[in-house]
Amino acid sequence: MVLDVIMLFGDSITQGGWSDGGFGARLANAYSRKFDVLNRGLAGYNTDWALPVLEQCLPTQHDQQHVPKIKILVVWFGANDACLKPSPQQVPLPKFTDNLKRIVHLVHSAESPYYSPSTKIILVTPPPVNTHQRLADLASRDPPLALDRNFEVTKEYAEAVTAVAVASNVAVVDVWTAIWKAAGEREEALPKYLSDGLHLLPDGYTIVYEALMKTIGTEHPELHYENLQCVFTPWAEVDWANPGPSVQKREAVISRN
Amino acid sequence: MVLDVIMLFGDSITQGGWSDGGFGARLANAYSRKFDVLNRGLAGYNTDWALPVLEQCLPTQHDQQHVPKIKILVVWFGANDACLKPSPQQVPLPKFTDNLKRIVHLVHSAESPYYSPSTKIILVTPPPVNTHQRLADLASRDPPLALDRNFEVTKEYAEAVTAVAVASNVAVVDVWTAIWKAAGEREEALPKYLSDGLHLLPDGYTIVYEALMKTIGTEHPELHYENLQCVFTPWAEVDWANPGPSVQKREAVISRN
Repeated sequence: MVLDVIMLFGDSITQGGWSDGGFGARLANAYSRKFDVLNRGLAGYNTDWALPVLEQCLPTQHDQQHVPKIKILVVWFGANDACLKPSPQQVPLPKFTDNLKRIVHLVHSAESPYYSPSTKIILVTPPPVNTHQRLADLASRDPPLALDRNFEVTKEYAEAVTAVAVASNVAVVDVWTAIWKAAGEREEALPKYLSDGLHLLPDGYTIVYEALMKTIGTEHPELHYENLQCVFTPWAEVDWANPGPSVQKREAVISRN
Repeated sequence: MVLDVIMLFGDSITQGGWSDGGFGARLANAYSRKFDVLNRGLAGYNTDWALPVLEQCLPTQHDQQHVPKIKILVVWFGANDACLKPSPQQVPLPKFTDNLKRIVHLVHSAESPYYSPSTKIILVTPPPVNTHQRLADLASRDPPLALDRNFEVTKEYAEAVTAVAVASNVAVVDVWTAIWKAAGEREEALPKYLSDGLHLLPDGYTIVYEALMKTIGTEHPELHYENLQCVFTPWAEVDWANPGPSVQKREAVISRN
């Protein structure tokens, strides 16, 4: 398939990232002809259920020679793990932390069958929940549903994501704080960014996109789209008399030797 | 990488399909958790230069076991091939026709190293050119450029795409006619769909998206996103007590046995 990959692995907020104004579609556009951006969002999933999926999405060391390299793995969970009991989506905070560490270990531990030291992991914190907006949305359903998430609990899960990133020495995009600050730390300003108190509107995804690109630029600048070349050369550089050799694929990452 | 693929292979009008309102991003959103939609758009390329690229993007028969299957290959050229001389992008009409046939043969001929009879090919005609809009855009450049495309020539290339599709027994999406009819067959109405007389605005991409989904629905209904299942099961169907076995990947295409 030729192009290496940025894999966006997460829940519905990742899956919805290809809707209008979504961060996934914007990433794919920015990285066109450089990396493919793959949607591995799983609506409703928590980290307990996502872990066995990830093992299927990562190539084993043996298979890595046959398939595109995962250059960046974005891991964005917590919005469902932070559900309130008795939701079956709820994962206790210590287990959530452990699951995130297991995800990092799957990729970065030399003992893992999926070991890929060149894959850069970026953890992302869940966005803040607007309890009022969420309650109104759930109450409007038929039958009405009870509140299943709240502001303070999701905040704790967001802090846990950052703690795992620090402990595991991987980058983090703190979407929780970025959106909370953009809202002036006022819950009543969150509806500019959240459609239903949980999922993101285009203005929310814009914050995610810009924060993610900034993090790539600072933590892994060699993988920022502005620092990559097209895998297939720009048309003005094609050898028009004998195009074949001039359009042979090349690494998007530019060698700095 | 788990998910099978829809590959969009074309020129800048394909490459730009992940911009806001673009047909690629919309396809990727519709097919999320079912097929990956890959951008293989190559701005400025004609079919002469694209052919050696395609040979690198298609897995050989030997490699097909290791990589995702290409379920649909959308081939959308003509906008550059139809350039006027002395543009180096120009490909004479008989050669353009021959190149399109070679693309189909690469995939559907049993003698080809890339033979993949299960890959459905959909050819797409280039959109109509608005000569006035294009001329104004080129005249505004520094230095000003002469007109490089015109309405009648691109129309001939569009007709050639349809002829190849009929002769090769593959589906065609006639974007040229769809946009021309939407514009009431009036060149002065084309700026609703074209940004610079050549590239598409969101209203143009909407026509492309809808025509493509309609063609998939009629020609290859088993591959329409509404008829596919998620490769990883919806969260409400996960076995919460023992998630692993319930989230094993499965074919997106539903077996009708």
